[in-house]
Amino acid sequence: MKPAEKIPKKMSGISEPWIKTISLSPPSLQDNTADADRIINALKKELHTDAIHTEFSLLKQLPDILRKWNYHVRCILVPSRGQWLLTGIAHAEDRKPFMGLAVDLGTTRVVLRLADISTGRILGESAFDNPQISVGPDILARIHYADTEEGLATVNRLIIDGLNREIVALCGKIRIPGPLQKADAEKGISPQDIYLISVAGNTAMTHLFMGLNPRWIIREPYIPVVNKPGVVKAEELGIKAANPLCRILVFPNVGSYFGGDLIAGILFSGMNTAEDTAILVDVGTNAEVVLGNKNWLIACAGAAGPALEGGVTKMGMMAGPGVIDKIAIDPDTHEFDIRTIGNMPPKGICGSGLIDLAAHLFLSGMLDIRGRLLPSVCGHRLKEKDNIRYLTVVPENNSAAGEELIISQTDIDSLIRSKAAMYTILETITASVGMSLSELSRFYVAGTFGSFISPRSAISIGMIPDLPPDCYKPLGNSSLGGATLALTSPECIAEIDRIRERITYLELNVNQDFMNRFSAAKFLPHTNPSLFPSVKIRAEN
Amino acid sequence: MKPAEKIPKKMSGISEPWIKTISLSPPSLQDNTADADRIINALKKELHTDAIHTEFSLLKQLPDILRKWNYHVRCILVPSRGQWLLTGIAHAEDRKPFMGLAVDLGTTRVVLRLADISTGRILGESAFDNPQISVGPDILARIHYADTEEGLATVNRLIIDGLNREIVALCGKIRIPGPLQKADAEKGISPQDIYLISVAGNTAMTHLFMGLNPRWIIREPYIPVVNKPGVVKAEELGIKAANPLCRILVFPNVGSYFGGDLIAGILFSGMNTAEDTAILVDVGTNAEVVLGNKNWLIACAGAAGPALEGGVTKMGMMAGPGVIDKIAIDPDTHEFDIRTIGNMPPKGICGSGLIDLAAHLFLSGMLDIRGRLLPSVCGHRLKEKDNIRYLTVVPENNSAAGEELIISQTDIDSLIRSKAAMYTILETITASVGMSLSELSRFYVAGTFGSFISPRSAISIGMIPDLPPDCYKPLGNSSLGGATLALTSPECIAEIDRIRERITYLELNVNQDFMNRFSAAKFLPHTNPSLFPSVKIRAEN
Repeated sequence: MKPAEKIPKKMSGISEPWIKTISLSPPSLQDNTADADRIINALKKELHTDAIHTEFSLLKQLPDILRKWNYHVRCILVPSRGQWLLTGIAHAEDRKPFMGLAVDLGTTRVVLRLADISTGRILGESAFDNPQISVGPDILARIHYADTEEGLATVNRLIIDGLNREIVALCGKIRIPGPLQKADAEKGISPQDIYLISVAGNTAMTHLFMGLNPRWIIREPYIPVVNKPGVVKAEELGIKAANPLCRILVFPNVGSYFGGDLIAGILFSGMNTAEDTAILVDVGTNAEVVLGNKNWLIACAGAAGPALEGGVTKMGMMAGPGVIDKIAIDPDTHEFDIRTIGNMPPKGICGSGLIDLAAHLFLSGMLDIRGRLLPSVCGHRLKEKDNIRYLTVVPENNSAAGEELIISQTDIDSLIRSKAAMYTILETITASVGMSLSELSRFYVAGTFGSFISPRSAISIGMIPDLPPDCYKPLGNSSLGGATLALTSPECIAEIDRIRERITYLELNVNQDFMNRFSAAKFLPHTNPSLFPSVKIRAEN
Repeated sequence: MKPAEKIPKKMSGISEPWIKTISLSPPSLQDNTADADRIINALKKELHTDAIHTEFSLLKQLPDILRKWNYHVRCILVPSRGQWLLTGIAHAEDRKPFMGLAVDLGTTRVVLRLADISTGRILGESAFDNPQISVGPDILARIHYADTEEGLATVNRLIIDGLNREIVALCGKIRIPGPLQKADAEKGISPQDIYLISVAGNTAMTHLFMGLNPRWIIREPYIPVVNKPGVVKAEELGIKAANPLCRILVFPNVGSYFGGDLIAGILFSGMNTAEDTAILVDVGTNAEVVLGNKNWLIACAGAAGPALEGGVTKMGMMAGPGVIDKIAIDPDTHEFDIRTIGNMPPKGICGSGLIDLAAHLFLSGMLDIRGRLLPSVCGHRLKEKDNIRYLTVVPENNSAAGEELIISQTDIDSLIRSKAAMYTILETITASVGMSLSELSRFYVAGTFGSFISPRSAISIGMIPDLPPDCYKPLGNSSLGGATLALTSPECIAEIDRIRERITYLELNVNQDFMNRFSAAKFLPHTNPSLFPSVKIRAEN
């Protein structure tokens, strides 16, 4: 979703789910109900529930507000512990937006999306590097850093301060367009108008965000402090760039290794409401996989290795200008057709480029089914150094740094182990419910990285199953997508807990069965080529 | 109730209603539920409800606490918005009390009672003058003072600071006796161990306590800010002398003129659960009356005048050492038998003494049925000054100040108007449901003042109906009693709201009917003496 798009309303039956405009009958000697009870009683009727309460600190302003606006008001109610909390009141005619903020709390990057809860309109997005990188690049380093009280406070403060700064900056950039009077057409917005924030992240990141010590997450038997944090006051978490009564919904986790980001992803994919069985994969160093439909969900996570993200090869790097993200090899001439981001001289390769490279090397016969570089086919591009073969992908005169870009046999072996691990995980989870991968109706790929992978190439190397092309659905930032959905309706919030409750976590036992599958998957595309009928290899090796 | 008594458990089915000791199964690879969810799930089973949540800030300590105490803990849960909040955890064997505090928030005097919620034992009581007296002696003056923002803040701060000080002082005085190990037998307690506070007061006092502007309470149509404040975080109200997670239950009101103190009184009397119809009267300047049984409750309030509290006569004063609280007059000799508090030389008369005086003046024939002092009977005690008759109650040589204590005809007229108003209110509310006063099974008198009135004397002057002596039940500080009950069980808290919902408020219309009743009641004991068969007058006037 891009700014100015609307939040999809597929799960929301009402147009302004958290907002109600009501006209109260003014008090009289015959009806001397107190101000707070008057408004709550009206909202109870409107929302058909008794579980409505006023935030206490709102009471102080209530008598003046109601009298000033003649008992004609627009209310915002936020969900809290299965109840509704009245946290904001505006004049019925005031079109000032009640805003919601969705946050994808990534280990590396944090993405914010601001939406007008009243209309569902997306107002803006921004992103920043997770400032916790300064104390540790990866989750493990940060958890160790947070082991002491001061360490935890530091790591927590980094993300909280970063969010506060970014929210202020994001609000500052936004001018509200739309159905306002002309005079008001360009109106700034304030963090004070944010009443609901939804945060999706992995278990460790959400713990650090909440200031909870993640120490036991990485120690057997791997216990988080909390599975279902629910809704917390923004103030209590130190989020000051929001209304003082703003609530934060923190996505629940299934355990230390299956976080709220994935639950958000499931919500965003919609697989939890579908009749047919689908699979959702978050490709990365740790592959997280969910299989299921509207009746059941089964999940597992396993190490696929950093090779899939391009993190192993010497020339591997994160996507960015000058980075190779697509490669094709002419099967006849073996000429390389290289595309870089921004069409700049190549300086490295990212994960999707690497998968393309491996796929085309294989399809053109330069790699055999065991993934070995074949000198007879590779020709002048193949060299050897210290007994290790390597292939020149970009010769030095074409590269950005004036240095040739190469891929070694070791790199390729590592990639193959990773793709084999990924396929084995997919096969194992599917087999655990007595299905085969070919029976899947949808293959969702979560994460930005997933959006760039060519399914065709990933199939060619046997990393993902050989399903018809339209089965593959890259979801983009599904964590942010799910967090955004959580701002749209009570049904969505209830569905988050339902998803969590329905997930059965499958512990991947690395037993003989798993190892047999893994060995079979270490071939290109697989020991059993009938599993990949669409993969046509140029040369029989 | 006095210190070291136990909270009556009549409404509580369980011995430790808010406290649960649980042994959790420690986490394992097979059961990796998070710490918070593990304890909450166990409590859900124990309490047979899903409406249990952890206070967020408790999460931070949870992992260490659970591991240190080997998953064997004692939990305190406080009620909040119809749900349970886990707010405190102690080691299962630690007998440190989880405490509750009941507060009677009087306009003049504030009374505190501390109880061990675990055992129901009352640990101590204390009282202090409501410090708001410094800005205004009565409710009206304080409401006017609170009209500005600073004024409200000042009045609010006075009571909050006063409570914080008094709680610390009360805790400091208490040493816990009881079923502890000998070494621990004398252990101090800390305000930090207070987890639940219940506050009962009139509508204006509870508003000022909560920092809510009571401006509209005294202006037509007399609207409070809130009828059902429910449960608020102590911290949010500025109560620091308590656990940071302590909750405060503020008794609800029925309207501006029927406050939480009376709802507490109803709860304490038990009339809300009785088969037979009873009446509850809070005697004072404003007489508040409730009539009803387990099926219905009807309430009204009306001005009875300050005369009943001894506030009109020159010699009237509040009860204290040297104040006359009992008088008998020998019907033959007309000698006065005067009793003062502490048996000290008399310096004035309090409300109960005044009622005794009027009753005996009447019974001995010194007052006629119209309440006129009769010179022929009063003899040398009667004098006249500025055309107003007055009677010497205590001659100057017997009084504390060396000045005679007198009561004038004007004082007596005023008392008679007050008692007539009181009787008329009682008659009107009873008639409104088609009953007569003689049908009442119980006559509860609320408030400390009520405890000192001699029912016999009050009947003699026709202030209260002529019921058999054992129908009269002085309740003492029923507001404090009800607030204490609220600490004992969830059923009591639910009952508070049920009482409030069941009360029908009867607006006393001062119409011809009321005026006729009032005129008839201005005689001693009444125009219709058959209503007071037990009142035997010495001399027929």
